[in-house]
Amino acid sequence: MTADGRTTYTDKTINQAIASLVFNGDGLVPVIAQQHDTGEVLMMAWMNADAVAETLRTGRVCYYSRSRQALWRKGESSGQTQTLVDFRIDCDGDTVLLQVDQRGVACHTGRRNCFFNAIRDDGVAVIAEVVTDPDELYKK
Amino acid sequence: MTADGRTTYTDKTINQAIASLVFNGDGLVPVIAQQHDTGEVLMMAWMNADAVAETLRTGRVCYYSRSRQALWRKGESSGQTQTLVDFRIDCDGDTVLLQVDQRGVACHTGRRNCFFNAIRDDGVAVIAEVVTDPDELYKK
Repeated sequence: MTADGRTTYTDKTINQAIASLVFNGDGLVPVIAQQHDTGEVLMMAWMNADAVAETLRTGRVCYYSRSRQALWRKGESSGQTQTLVDFRIDCDGDTVLLQVDQRGVACHTGRRNCFFNAIRDDGVAVIAEVVTDPDELYKK
Repeated sequence: MTADGRTTYTDKTINQAIASLVFNGDGLVPVIAQQHDTGEVLMMAWMNADAVAETLRTGRVCYYSRSRQALWRKGESSGQTQTLVDFRIDCDGDTVLLQVDQRGVACHTGRRNCFFNAIRDDGVAVIAEVVTDPDELYKK
């Protein structure tokens, strides 16, 4: 635990966590991020071993961007960081569930979470409002 | 809506849902199942287009088993079915979040959810009890 309350781990524990994960053929595991206190599912993304290590070492969530093929420190551009609260691994070791504290909005569209398209009787409907203008999130 | 309260959709809506999904190179999308009233994340699995269609047509959750390479009607062997409450698609169309009503336990280990391994200071710890003996779930 850091002075400002982030949950962090030693190298030994980080190595044990990585050893218990089953990465796919691309060296990745899917990661679900859930707001720790409300239970809201915020997003799904991917991590490689380096992203797992950085997340556990710093207490700030770091994914792996498949499109950019690079570590993706969530909130680095937008300020919408995720602080780690708990790191959980499923029964098969091939999926991660993160309990996080999301600052601002998780979705690049400016919505609180990414799952805002819902099936309704007449098709696919948008069920969440934009909270923060994406132009504000990514302005230089 | 069926007589026993399941949420089901017409072929037209099902086709719209499938058209708005981005399946990966194997024809699959990752699917997160969340207990609709408590927010508990139960499991992650995969669907192909046929599994999406069956889930939306019947209101019973059907995945695609990558190991068996066949449709996996959740609870078919164990009785631990998932009734569909809401079907949501993320901003990129490449991940599904299901709100479900889980009967019994979601995990094949007999635990309520699959994410029972948690990183603790001294390594990976099991944080959930077995609720139902797996031998009871899968007995013939």
